[in-house]
Amino acid sequence: MQRYFVDQVLTTDDDPIYIEAADHHHLARVMRMTTGDQVYIVFADNQFCTAEIVSVSEDKTLLKLVEWQTNNPELPIAITIASGLPKGDKLEWIVQKGTELGADSFIAFPSDRSIVKWDAKKTEKKRERLQKIAKEAAEQSHRVHVPTITTLASGKQLAERCGEYDAVVVAYEESAKANEKAVLASVFAALRPGMRLLVIFGPEGGISEQEIQLFKAQKAHFAGLGPRILRTETAPLYLLAAASYQFELNNE
Amino acid sequence: MQRYFVDQVLTTDDDPIYIEAADHHHLARVMRMTTGDQVYIVFADNQFCTAEIVSVSEDKTLLKLVEWQTNNPELPIAITIASGLPKGDKLEWIVQKGTELGADSFIAFPSDRSIVKWDAKKTEKKRERLQKIAKEAAEQSHRVHVPTITTLASGKQLAERCGEYDAVVVAYEESAKANEKAVLASVFAALRPGMRLLVIFGPEGGISEQEIQLFKAQKAHFAGLGPRILRTETAPLYLLAAASYQFELNNE
Repeated sequence: MQRYFVDQVLTTDDDPIYIEAADHHHLARVMRMTTGDQVYIVFADNQFCTAEIVSVSEDKTLLKLVEWQTNNPELPIAITIASGLPKGDKLEWIVQKGTELGADSFIAFPSDRSIVKWDAKKTEKKRERLQKIAKEAAEQSHRVHVPTITTLASGKQLAERCGEYDAVVVAYEESAKANEKAVLASVFAALRPGMRLLVIFGPEGGISEQEIQLFKAQKAHFAGLGPRILRTETAPLYLLAAASYQFELNNE
Repeated sequence: MQRYFVDQVLTTDDDPIYIEAADHHHLARVMRMTTGDQVYIVFADNQFCTAEIVSVSEDKTLLKLVEWQTNNPELPIAITIASGLPKGDKLEWIVQKGTELGADSFIAFPSDRSIVKWDAKKTEKKRERLQKIAKEAAEQSHRVHVPTITTLASGKQLAERCGEYDAVVVAYEESAKANEKAVLASVFAALRPGMRLLVIFGPEGGISEQEIQLFKAQKAHFAGLGPRILRTETAPLYLLAAASYQFELNNE
């Protein structure tokens, strides 16, 4: 069933629900849905329900609540993926696949070894495009939370934010090469539902010695993600899948 | 360091090592390597070493062994990913990313709900292309085993092969929707190093009722991969990352 995110919060179960703008266009024109059809509605407070279309007008769709949904599709740990700007369209698919795999939010930053550069205008345009990709992927994967996209100006700015998280991990290729195998599992073991984890990934050339020192000063853990060398766009997906397995499947 | 796969097996440490054909072209023309440069060589028996270039001639490169390598980058469980033919270039990137993440082999089959069709000629051409992608991804991710690509004619042929594996899992969207969380971890818990696991993924529309019955008759396990709905090309990567985490990082 189709899923739409609305800015509204319901105060009573009888409140009218509205879908407007691009989502209205999608529902009415692309999906050609009409009175009596049902969709999922996710409200601004992450509550979600099934709702039935009451009427479709020129500029908006009116719906009414059918039933509240309680199955929580969100990872119990809020994971932020921070990526040093990679080449090409890799960031777009890190956001798309990472959203499917349950990321809470994404941070993009120009790492010392990033080859691409974004000026201020390009940064905002890119951020908006990534936000749109996250929204579509959240709908498609039946999530109730749309990951936020943040852009920072440097690894230094990222280091200054490390204190906002319960744990910080740097995915470190040299750790993988040195056969480091225990750090990720030990970080996971210390996390409890509701905690926040920041995981930092370098661009193609990896993170610089200076960035390593910045993150070390913030008590980041340097972890290997298995003995194979993963591309810069594959490593975040490994991390998120491993977290889902650990926190959602392996704890029965 | 660059890594090349050769068909040879060394019988003594003094045997000459040869790189020929496309790999020779890559080494000599693309990478412009020359006498004295070192590369990794992976032999037909999966043993691998560092080797030094002795000479580069018109049609081949001659090398000598420097040092055997013993770090094993292969997953302890041999995982075969079977994909019902998906749309577009998704299979190419399942093979590329799945090779990075440690898959032992790949099987492509036209599933009942596959929209694309491959005739005999196209099938062989596609298989060769996927094999090339697997070889490049294996080199790039520092693996010593290049996954094999097999094409089958139907889900029925796939079911007939299930007996070759120690366990068979079907990644089943309905299991995910029904909040099934325990099957994958219990299958993993029963696997020991050296065992073979087949994991079957449907195309975009999922596997058919008839295919479900075929795989059920082969004692396949139907598992959910977490509470979010994963795209057909994302689910195999989730499985492989979860297996790597379980068997390579979480067992210290």
